[in-house]
Amino acid sequence: MKLEAQWIAGFVDGEGCFHVGIARHDDMTTGVQVLPEFTVVQHERDAKLLHALKAYFGCGVVRSNHGDRLAFRVRDRRCLVDVIVPFFMRHSLKSSKHVDFLKFRRVLLAMEDGRHLTEEGVEEIRRISAQMNRRRPR
Amino acid sequence: MKLEAQWIAGFVDGEGCFHVGIARHDDMTTGVQVLPEFTVVQHERDAKLLHALKAYFGCGVVRSNHGDRLAFRVRDRRCLVDVIVPFFMRHSLKSSKHVDFLKFRRVLLAMEDGRHLTEEGVEEIRRISAQMNRRRPR
Repeated sequence: MKLEAQWIAGFVDGEGCFHVGIARHDDMTTGVQVLPEFTVVQHERDAKLLHALKAYFGCGVVRSNHGDRLAFRVRDRRCLVDVIVPFFMRHSLKSSKHVDFLKFRRVLLAMEDGRHLTEEGVEEIRRISAQMNRRRPR
Repeated sequence: MKLEAQWIAGFVDGEGCFHVGIARHDDMTTGVQVLPEFTVVQHERDAKLLHALKAYFGCGVVRSNHGDRLAFRVRDRRCLVDVIVPFFMRHSLKSSKHVDFLKFRRVLLAMEDGRHLTEEGVEEIRRISAQMNRRRPR
């Protein structure tokens, strides 16, 4: 299945999620690990859409989510920074999800500068991530 | 806000709904009225998207739905037959919602032939509509 960039933007405006997880991780100096991820969840009936997204972006995985749902998920930072973020800069989201995307991008840029390895950086990322995805129940 | 056809197809793959209501209506010979409708529901924060869809198609209304949600809704049969159906024939949905769209189209074509005014036609439409939107909680 061949996808067009604008179709992907429209579909992600409806179904995509930009999320920044912050998990305890005792091996890190800051005690936490910052985990940005981009996901699109669908009923397993539409698995082929998720595989088409994976093929389009050339990264990410398709995995079982909850029950009969599957997720296309990108956690690899190089893929997020080099592929996903540039795609949504070129093909802007039109819904209020665009604001979440911009915050997601700010977190990734902070991580590119290594700020997630400092306590102040983690605090900054925590503040940004707390303001994301507040409008939709997940 | 200017929308592109492929963005609309992607967004409707995520957020659109093709539905055929069958309501009691004592003035009709068959005792029922067939009410096909196309809707896209969003949080009121994204009202501008729904107004952009309305402007793109040149028909339909944007109305309050439940709570803080708004719906872009097309019920006018001429608009459904002459605008909405041709649009999604040209710009195919890629999700399993495409199957619902094809059933929706079958109902509209039956109505164009006046079959919704006969008891057999209503039974046929009932059978089709019972097989729509079974994969998603509404």
